Amino acid sequence: MGTMILALDFGGTKLSAALLARGSTTWQDHRRAFSPPHPDAAQDLHTIIALARALLGHEKPAAIGVSFGGPVDYQTGTVRLSHHVPGWENLPLKTILETEFDAPTHVDNDANVAALGESRFGAGRGFSSMGYLTVSTGVGGGWILNGQPWRGANGMAGEIGHITIDPNGPLCLCGKRGCVERLASGPYLAADAREELLHSPLAAGEGLGGEGPLTAKQLAEAAAQGNAFAWKYLQRSAWALGVGIGNAANLLNPERFVLGGGVTKSGERYWAEIRRVARETALPEVLFEVVPAELGDDAPLWGAVALTGLV
Amino acid sequence: MGTMILALDFGGTKLSAALLARGSTTWQDHRRAFSPPHPDAAQDLHTIIALARALLGHEKPAAIGVSFGGPVDYQTGTVRLSHHVPGWENLPLKTILETEFDAPTHVDNDANVAALGESRFGAGRGFSSMGYLTVSTGVGGGWILNGQPWRGANGMAGEIGHITIDPNGPLCLCGKRGCVERLASGPYLAADAREELLHSPLAAGEGLGGEGPLTAKQLAEAAAQGNAFAWKYLQRSAWALGVGIGNAANLLNPERFVLGGGVTKSGERYWAEIRRVARETALPEVLFEVVPAELGDDAPLWGAVALTGLV
Repeated sequence: MGTMILALDFGGTKLSAALLARGSTTWQDHRRAFSPPHPDAAQDLHTIIALARALLGHEKPAAIGVSFGGPVDYQTGTVRLSHHVPGWENLPLKTILETEFDAPTHVDNDANVAALGESRFGAGRGFSSMGYLTVSTGVGGGWILNGQPWRGANGMAGEIGHITIDPNGPLCLCGKRGCVERLASGPYLAADAREELLHSPLAAGEGLGGEGPLTAKQLAEAAAQGNAFAWKYLQRSAWALGVGIGNAANLLNPERFVLGGGVTKSGERYWAEIRRVARETALPEVLFEVVPAELGDDAPLWGAVALTGLV
Repeated sequence: MGTMILALDFGGTKLSAALLARGSTTWQDHRRAFSPPHPDAAQDLHTIIALARALLGHEKPAAIGVSFGGPVDYQTGTVRLSHHVPGWENLPLKTILETEFDAPTHVDNDANVAALGESRFGAGRGFSSMGYLTVSTGVGGGWILNGQPWRGANGMAGEIGHITIDPNGPLCLCGKRGCVERLASGPYLAADAREELLHSPLAAGEGLGGEGPLTAKQLAEAAAQGNAFAWKYLQRSAWALGVGIGNAANLLNPERFVLGGGVTKSGERYWAEIRRVARETALPEVLFEVVPAELGDDAPLWGAVALTGLV
């Protein structure tokens, strides 16, 4: 049996492969490729296998862990679909990779895998229960309970982005009103701010609302400069995450919530608001902390390593 | 070692003890007493020990399981407090009973214990994951995950009554707006209906709003007769439970939700509304059922039996 663990990450637009020697805490090697403008499953699979082959040379891996950006049947390792890339419907990814590399393979969705990564190697180290949230184009999540991923009865646990917290809130793509994702995620934030600027071009004051698209990052930068218009939208995002976290704390009472994703890089004021609202939403007896993720973009790869069960 | 399992239930106003022969599925014997009008911990403890002694005769129990109506530190078996009965603050109930009966004792709060009872002997039989809700004077809950109670990091998991689902909703005793309990529990339902009748005495139409207090049960009976005023409040309760269940399903994806407590006896229309809203609130891929509890008032006693680990 080989001594190398192969970790693979099928992101929305990025494909990554990394190699870890068993017992080591740093990557032996690490390769990335971007998906082409119009990707498909077969091409992405071909690309990531080529990355892995380049890393492995003639070595056979001891095991393979895979993070996939979309729903996966963990038991069978079959991808249900990708929201970004066509052709993934019901593809038996575990079987394909086991055949290709002749090594035991575990596949799970990126939120569960990133949660496991943070739990084992990042901000959740030393805690047996943890809620993980990633806040970027969407709001996803995963649970670690008793040190293990809790996937739910049919693998759908962790959809904190689609708990509803305001029946009069704006309409989400999922068909409901006031989902956490609808109120907190980057694209929705930016779209709602743009919409207001269309109707009230002067609302933003100086420094916002010029040419080109508006992004959540621009809003965060403007808010950091004291722009009240930008802060209004960021505060709504922080409020929604705080209510979501506080509600989840009341339901499950994990030790920590670990938050990653681009939108969580919106500064100290944003974090203070998340923590304040989460604390107010949870009952006083429900104890928890809210902390930033530590592994950044590498969380799925580290989680994939943990998924193999060899570390 | 004895062959009898002793189950004890400290309810809000009722004390129960029951005896089960190991291997049997029906109680050997069963005794109840009501707490006096001004109960205290010492008196309740004395009463339940007397009930147990009367059941046991000279026999020593193999183990004791205890359901307590208030927060408990499960690890130490220490009661934190009772919301109904003074004197329970930090009482080491497990140690007291182990000294009294010389038998290993397990103590947990009533929601966790009832959840375990329904899981092992009631509506959750054969399912490894389950959310349990009891809807009566309050809204409490408990989780069974991988067949075991999930109590949370400091024993506070299951507080589905205090997840907030409407930031513009009415103020709850907990200090927040729009908690599930504030919108769904019996006393709040009745109080809100009474409040409306104070201002609009004819709102209820015939058959409601006479002398005496209004109860959730009366509202349910009137709604069953077609009273639209009563149904408005019951529908709000069902809506709140449906949103709470749907949100919890998105977060945890258990196989079943089991609902007990007096308010859940409000008829088929009430249940249909809970199920409709829960289904709409959860993502389509999140599969679950919502079913009535089967053990009624005996759920804590059966759960106490399961808590001993001997069945």
